[in-house]
Amino acid sequence: MDKSTEIIDWFKSLQDTICGSLEALDGNQFREDLWERSGGGGGRTRILNGDIIEKGGVNFSAVHGNMPDNIASKLGLPENKFLATGVSIVLHPKSPHIPIIHMNVRYFQTDSGHWWFGGGIDLTPHYIVEDQARFFHQSLKAACDKHHPGYYSEFKTWADDYFFIRHRDETRGIGGIFFDRLNEERGSLDENFAFVKAVGNAFVPIYTHMVEKNLERPITEQDLLWQRLRRGRYVEFNLVWDKGTKFGLDTNGRTESILMSLPPQANWVYDFRPEDNPAATVTQSLLKKGIDWVV
Amino acid sequence: MDKSTEIIDWFKSLQDTICGSLEALDGNQFREDLWERSGGGGGRTRILNGDIIEKGGVNFSAVHGNMPDNIASKLGLPENKFLATGVSIVLHPKSPHIPIIHMNVRYFQTDSGHWWFGGGIDLTPHYIVEDQARFFHQSLKAACDKHHPGYYSEFKTWADDYFFIRHRDETRGIGGIFFDRLNEERGSLDENFAFVKAVGNAFVPIYTHMVEKNLERPITEQDLLWQRLRRGRYVEFNLVWDKGTKFGLDTNGRTESILMSLPPQANWVYDFRPEDNPAATVTQSLLKKGIDWVV
Repeated sequence: MDKSTEIIDWFKSLQDTICGSLEALDGNQFREDLWERSGGGGGRTRILNGDIIEKGGVNFSAVHGNMPDNIASKLGLPENKFLATGVSIVLHPKSPHIPIIHMNVRYFQTDSGHWWFGGGIDLTPHYIVEDQARFFHQSLKAACDKHHPGYYSEFKTWADDYFFIRHRDETRGIGGIFFDRLNEERGSLDENFAFVKAVGNAFVPIYTHMVEKNLERPITEQDLLWQRLRRGRYVEFNLVWDKGTKFGLDTNGRTESILMSLPPQANWVYDFRPEDNPAATVTQSLLKKGIDWVV
Repeated sequence: MDKSTEIIDWFKSLQDTICGSLEALDGNQFREDLWERSGGGGGRTRILNGDIIEKGGVNFSAVHGNMPDNIASKLGLPENKFLATGVSIVLHPKSPHIPIIHMNVRYFQTDSGHWWFGGGIDLTPHYIVEDQARFFHQSLKAACDKHHPGYYSEFKTWADDYFFIRHRDETRGIGGIFFDRLNEERGSLDENFAFVKAVGNAFVPIYTHMVEKNLERPITEQDLLWQRLRRGRYVEFNLVWDKGTKFGLDTNGRTESILMSLPPQANWVYDFRPEDNPAATVTQSLLKKGIDWVV
């Protein structure tokens, strides 16, 4: 079997597995939209509006064809036939005590012989709880360490830099890992693929833990306002700074699938200061790069 | 008196006049934040959280100093001392039947002798009402026609192109007028200034009309959902496509003043179709370029 077919099949099975686990956790079913791309390929967009996950998307796509000029120049590649495939997830939970989570794993290749993997997982707690932040980063470190002793540290720094809201001088959340263009310089295709599989497989246990730890915590009006303001920051990051979103919108991607990442509702209050909400104040103080969560 | 001082003073007085009129209309007072820019100059940010205007900003700023490299290259100018001053307004009304309005008038000059005016007014009705759209465009045409017979048509087309949400293939609202770099090629500085004053002075009568026409119309839950979805589109335009917002965020502008344009609350629903809301369906069909509202 062609290697790219194996990768595509594995991404599809990852989508199936994750959707199945989230349906079991939430008690509600995903809605699926199949779509095709006029230039070649298509995808399976799956959306959950559930009881725990207020709005979540778990998307698979595999698109191929002739690379448009603008994509080739953005990637610094000669024009060529390409294949891009991956799974993208964003979950906005109903409870402000459960974090927003994002995961992406992706593979790209051209007929001229270029190939690479990319991806990552990052967490955006509305309220940062330090022992949960440590659990999250330790889980990612464990997944990384099996593949390369330097990966966690390198990709954690990359996530800090990537998930940064420059105009607010704050990180989107507590980061996680982010990596791109993992190619033959990092190991064989199989070795890179094994690492990406480990990242994909880490998602369900991590998020199940986050839901179970926080689901029963009581919610106040103040918590809900703070959640909607943090969701506003999530919108700001995704629409202003996220290169993946920009790339998708600039290259005529399927808008509804790309913007499934936006929250169900977001608020903006001019010059908001959470002075009467100590947990929010603590959270704000931790929205910065370079915190070592695995000491 | 130096001409730039006269322009700055007029922009300040425009801010005062508009705030006074909106306070009389709404019955509540603006909050004012004065701010200074470390490189020179500053501004007066005024925010209203009222009974008619749920969230509105009427901002004046006049900043000057040495032009940062990145600004000079963005503008295609040699590095130099510069002055940038203007008034920017965005009003998000509480009622879904009252349109969102945006106005900007601005002046820019450098010590190397470059100068220009820019600005515009555009309207984003949550529901497009055709006779009100005609009133709006006729008012703008009347203001333009006194200065140049071709201005309305030229600047209306410019607004259609500018206030366009490319990834949705729809306009932000019904457009209006937009213009930039009005300089000696268009007339003397005084002539251009007179035109910009006419645009600034058109704001209060237009918006007063919009409020009075729609304030008493009954509001349903369906209207409020539709409003929050349209506000979501407003966020998408401002954060993804608006060059002014991008310029401000890229050049270390005052974030809270720039993002006062964002609505108090916005919603996103995956693949929303307003099938049971005929007025929303009509509105969607009118979110396109090239509609002639003054025939």
